[in-house]
Amino acid sequence: MKKILAFDIGGTKIAYAVTDENGNFANDVVKVTTPKTSEGIYEFFKTVVKGLEDEVDGVSIATAGAVNNENTRIISHVGNLPEGYNGLDFMSLTDKPLLLENDANSAAWAEYKLGAAKGTRHAVVLTLGTGVGSGIIVDGRLLKGKSGAAGEMHVRFDSGEHRKCTCGLWDCLETYVSGNALTTDARLYMREDMTSYDVIRGLKDGNPKAREAFDHWQSCLENTLVLMGNIFDPEVIVLSGSMAQFVEYEKINKQANHDILTRPFELKQAVFENNAGMIGAALLLAERLRQEERP
Amino acid sequence: MKKILAFDIGGTKIAYAVTDENGNFANDVVKVTTPKTSEGIYEFFKTVVKGLEDEVDGVSIATAGAVNNENTRIISHVGNLPEGYNGLDFMSLTDKPLLLENDANSAAWAEYKLGAAKGTRHAVVLTLGTGVGSGIIVDGRLLKGKSGAAGEMHVRFDSGEHRKCTCGLWDCLETYVSGNALTTDARLYMREDMTSYDVIRGLKDGNPKAREAFDHWQSCLENTLVLMGNIFDPEVIVLSGSMAQFVEYEKINKQANHDILTRPFELKQAVFENNAGMIGAALLLAERLRQEERP
Repeated sequence: MKKILAFDIGGTKIAYAVTDENGNFANDVVKVTTPKTSEGIYEFFKTVVKGLEDEVDGVSIATAGAVNNENTRIISHVGNLPEGYNGLDFMSLTDKPLLLENDANSAAWAEYKLGAAKGTRHAVVLTLGTGVGSGIIVDGRLLKGKSGAAGEMHVRFDSGEHRKCTCGLWDCLETYVSGNALTTDARLYMREDMTSYDVIRGLKDGNPKAREAFDHWQSCLENTLVLMGNIFDPEVIVLSGSMAQFVEYEKINKQANHDILTRPFELKQAVFENNAGMIGAALLLAERLRQEERP
Repeated sequence: MKKILAFDIGGTKIAYAVTDENGNFANDVVKVTTPKTSEGIYEFFKTVVKGLEDEVDGVSIATAGAVNNENTRIISHVGNLPEGYNGLDFMSLTDKPLLLENDANSAAWAEYKLGAAKGTRHAVVLTLGTGVGSGIIVDGRLLKGKSGAAGEMHVRFDSGEHRKCTCGLWDCLETYVSGNALTTDARLYMREDMTSYDVIRGLKDGNPKAREAFDHWQSCLENTLVLMGNIFDPEVIVLSGSMAQFVEYEKINKQANHDILTRPFELKQAVFENNAGMIGAALLLAERLRQEERP
């Protein structure tokens, strides 16, 4: 059984653990605060890798940012990580096989191989967190595009509301469907100082303004499901990330499947939570190691 | 060299010709008016196929509507063809190999193998006609999805303008980017009795209202390019169909590539015009025949 040292790096935390090729962790997941400089991040990776590389067959890193098709480097600017991060030479960390993959793609791969999309060939996994990410499985393969950056959910929902997106454009899907979007709806439908938490709390308390805010957010999510359903005709759309738990699955599943032109998909909540990225990138590396072993 | 009897069937015309496996026609393309009943269509196919099947290695049909992954039958309602059309038993037309494929997918395959997307592995072909169709090539393969219906461009552009779409929903992309959409813009920006033709004529005459109408239409097309660029990260986006000739390629290419988060794509006009569907479906069949011959 292969062993992989699996990392997941985000803007606030780096998590790591040793996992087997079925995504079972050999130890508790360690979490540390992400260092403030790219040099600090590199040194941290180096220290952990040096300490554990003799025990493992390879190193996988799930990361924010688009990763090239060779899984060796980051090809896009990564807003929530320090300057210089996207230029780091990850391949110099170890002589063992090392695989880098985007965190949303990695999470999607975990759901596809072992989670909510297991047994399918066509799946869309949407990560609804602060922003919106996606990982798309087309006939059993991760959609990467020419450079590795496919699956960016920055699509203009030209709604005329004029919400500024983190990508620099206006009215992207992300500004209507993310956690931040629900805070925008809280301000619009409730009060200027309200956030997404107030919407969720208000929903439980039967607050009609909170219901309006949530319904607006959820109707934008339904538009997103129609978009992905019509373009990809997937067997399943999986929702992950911090906002996934609040979605009214039965209702929105029915509505979206009524509105698509393709055949019905299943809407499911992700099986893996925070560790999906680590597991998915480790599975991708384990698969590559097995392929390289074939005679 | 294999010979294929290639058909393309649409709501108004059926075209057919014998082609070799490189898409070269052996004779002039014959065009007839589409019969008004599904029985009439079947009888017409049957007559032509019976007359020519001894001369060819197979029959290909590019058709409106989504086609299943086995390329044997239509799986969706086809609005612009007579009732019962989607239930036709195409496989009973001949004992020779027969392949059915959606017309936009077929046209995309022709552009990918021999046309504007030749030499790439990742391409999006948008057909801008009365409606909007798409054929998408992901790493050298046609994107079909679980049932064969992938690539439906019915995506809600939630713009608040409330344009009714032929699919039954409101404010689909198709209502902003098609030929019909430009007629809607002509009415909005010019006069109630104006059409897309008046916009194009007005543009040449320097009419500022026509320019406004066209700019609105073209900005919606640019949104569509950003959508497809961000989701698929293609090497090339090809525009085909009757509206493709009017697009200001250099301008919109620059703008869309400025707005995407992925790596730049090339925007190109399709090489094949009306015969792209026939050629593409014939190429797909020729490829299958070659695969079946392999030892």
